[in-house]
Amino acid sequence: MKATIRTINGGVTSAQGFQAGGAHVGLKRKRKDLAILVSDCPAVMAGTFTQNTAKAPPVLWNHNINQKGEPVKALVINSGNANSCTGPMGPVHAKMMAEALANELGAATEEVLVSSTGIIGVPLPIDDVVKGIGIVSQELGHDRESGKKAAEAIMTTDAYTKELAVQFEVQGKTITLGAMAKGSGMVHPNMATMLSFITTDLKISKQLLQKALSESVNKTYNMISVDGDSSTNDMVVAMANGMAGNEELVEEDMDYHLFADALNYLNEHLAKSIAADGEGASKLLEVEVEGANSLEEARTMARAIISSNLVKTAAFANDPNWGRIVAALGSTGVAFDMTVLDISMAGNQQSVYLVQNGTPMFVESVSVNQILKADQVCVTIALNQGQCSAKAWGCDLTHEYIERTCRYTSDHVIESLPKLQAMVQEGEVA
Amino acid sequence: MKATIRTINGGVTSAQGFQAGGAHVGLKRKRKDLAILVSDCPAVMAGTFTQNTAKAPPVLWNHNINQKGEPVKALVINSGNANSCTGPMGPVHAKMMAEALANELGAATEEVLVSSTGIIGVPLPIDDVVKGIGIVSQELGHDRESGKKAAEAIMTTDAYTKELAVQFEVQGKTITLGAMAKGSGMVHPNMATMLSFITTDLKISKQLLQKALSESVNKTYNMISVDGDSSTNDMVVAMANGMAGNEELVEEDMDYHLFADALNYLNEHLAKSIAADGEGASKLLEVEVEGANSLEEARTMARAIISSNLVKTAAFANDPNWGRIVAALGSTGVAFDMTVLDISMAGNQQSVYLVQNGTPMFVESVSVNQILKADQVCVTIALNQGQCSAKAWGCDLTHEYIERTCRYTSDHVIESLPKLQAMVQEGEVA
Repeated sequence: MKATIRTINGGVTSAQGFQAGGAHVGLKRKRKDLAILVSDCPAVMAGTFTQNTAKAPPVLWNHNINQKGEPVKALVINSGNANSCTGPMGPVHAKMMAEALANELGAATEEVLVSSTGIIGVPLPIDDVVKGIGIVSQELGHDRESGKKAAEAIMTTDAYTKELAVQFEVQGKTITLGAMAKGSGMVHPNMATMLSFITTDLKISKQLLQKALSESVNKTYNMISVDGDSSTNDMVVAMANGMAGNEELVEEDMDYHLFADALNYLNEHLAKSIAADGEGASKLLEVEVEGANSLEEARTMARAIISSNLVKTAAFANDPNWGRIVAALGSTGVAFDMTVLDISMAGNQQSVYLVQNGTPMFVESVSVNQILKADQVCVTIALNQGQCSAKAWGCDLTHEYIERTCRYTSDHVIESLPKLQAMVQEGEVA
Repeated sequence: MKATIRTINGGVTSAQGFQAGGAHVGLKRKRKDLAILVSDCPAVMAGTFTQNTAKAPPVLWNHNINQKGEPVKALVINSGNANSCTGPMGPVHAKMMAEALANELGAATEEVLVSSTGIIGVPLPIDDVVKGIGIVSQELGHDRESGKKAAEAIMTTDAYTKELAVQFEVQGKTITLGAMAKGSGMVHPNMATMLSFITTDLKISKQLLQKALSESVNKTYNMISVDGDSSTNDMVVAMANGMAGNEELVEEDMDYHLFADALNYLNEHLAKSIAADGEGASKLLEVEVEGANSLEEARTMARAIISSNLVKTAAFANDPNWGRIVAALGSTGVAFDMTVLDISMAGNQQSVYLVQNGTPMFVESVSVNQILKADQVCVTIALNQGQCSAKAWGCDLTHEYIERTCRYTSDHVIESLPKLQAMVQEGEVA
């Protein structure tokens, strides 16, 4: 991070003119499950959405709004139910969420974005959601605490909230950028749905905001993996309301690059936080592939390693099984020269080479074990071919992962069966 | 399988003119670790090899011989060490294995194929291997028991041997086709290395043998996944020695198609057996995708489902989590219409629709649980779009998988450290 960018204790309400709130409205048993985020004035938006062809209705709703390019005013997010694979009522319910918040705010329905995360294939309890929107929209605040409530309300099986804010100067004005995100957790461990919402008071053109966001997402959120399964509900949305009072950024000048750096710092922090809090994870894995012939190849290889089940189980037991890393590299189809390869692992402020110049180093496995017994382990692969490098983040594959993910539907369906039957009787299920 | 094809209790020695043997020669602690397979007369070969760009030296050795197209006489396989990522000595050791067996048989080095499976990155103890080749080549036999010994000697962490033989008639001659294969197991759970060796006394051109093998591998071995990690040592090799006395098959006539069917039956049986014996597996998963627009799309989707960690953990707990199946379908990037989709699951002689015409069926999860509590669970996805279908096989992801795969290198390196240090002192390690 550049010295001119500083982190502050904050989140989505840190930037000027953003209010938020969050509460329990009945989708989950006890924890907060509905969040609202409102900009005091219309904001330009940028978004990146899941590549899954089975996109959930809220994703399609936001994608359409982003395509149209008009400013937006607010965002409502529920957790506990993904409104995904919910048949013809899915898009109707997504729109009803936007409508309900628009009514409260006196805004147009198309100025409101929506997001859902939780179980797939169960109809959204729309009455609870609409009622909840009415309640939460009365409790919005610009303060830190209100931002925290929203960050709590978007969690599913996350062990902790994921928030950060950063500040920097543009044209003598202080610009603030804040965000909240969620990853995978424990109550509804379905699909490790990844959401991130970013607010800023910077004045910037929609086109530049989208460019900065897309480039940063490719370097951050798109470089993490908890279990290799891509969700139907993933989205990253940024809103910029211009309330910092700077002249609008419209070209890729120094100010833009400063913003892009700050945005990327924020996103990398949240992405790593999501990976570290992956379902059942005991540690964060950072993999850097250096010396690749292209950025694309470096990214592909880093992602392959971070996604390998065998690399992940070895990490769980602090086992320096570099053969699995080589096999994962090769599984990408990218050619590399094994005779010049270096592989090192680092943790607990120490590092060790396992392979140098393609030659295995016979290190004492007991000492490597100590290095790998850390909350964060970094694996560096130097291909020593080209100039490109990429980082990816993931976590280990543990007994806890199996426990947390294996019984989800059975538990949930048994728990919610009476409610579902009532909905079927009321004709709500197509 | 066509009625004209019958299975027999057999393996690689069932076809006329094939001898085999297997013994413990010191690479593993106690179990057999060296197998030899010899044809009494030169045989045409066909092979398919790992797509991993980090191909192990034995794979490259066989690939070269297959490219040249000359007949082969024998195959030597060691387990316990993959001779992969072993530096400049790797290819030297692979060739030394071929040479040692060629000397015993009075054959040319280029008539001998080699294969290795086991730990990656540890130098092959070549002295033990060469000595072992001398011993095992004195104990070869055409009998069933000798075939069994070979099938045992290629196992790594497999819980059981994988063998089958089938017979059918061509031009009034009985043709026999036998095979042995290995998957993943427990003593050296590295990379789920997949090997399969097929022998037949059919007389067939090399070109047709390769065509039949490649097509069958795409339908069978390439449609299984234990953990999504592709190995540096995978290979399927077929040898046809013509000793059944039929006129050589040189075109795609009815006899060829009968052979192709028999070969595919054999391969499907072994592929399913490998999937069922995947590391830590408690059940076999069969996934069929029907009604796709192309075979390619059907295969991609079936493979995506079988490879999804979340589908696999749900299977472990008998949880009918079809939302994860839809997400896996969508993650392939292949478009499909959710409103016409059917999903059913079958086990224990019962089956149940979870989704029909895109509508979730709210079945009693307790009864589905009973259906899924089976050794073999079949999931059928009807896309109801086109005419193409594909099957894939895998297994569940269990606590046992984590246990078996997590500590491999540490255990192995600690165990073999004295030997490795001796080798380093002797200058054997580059």
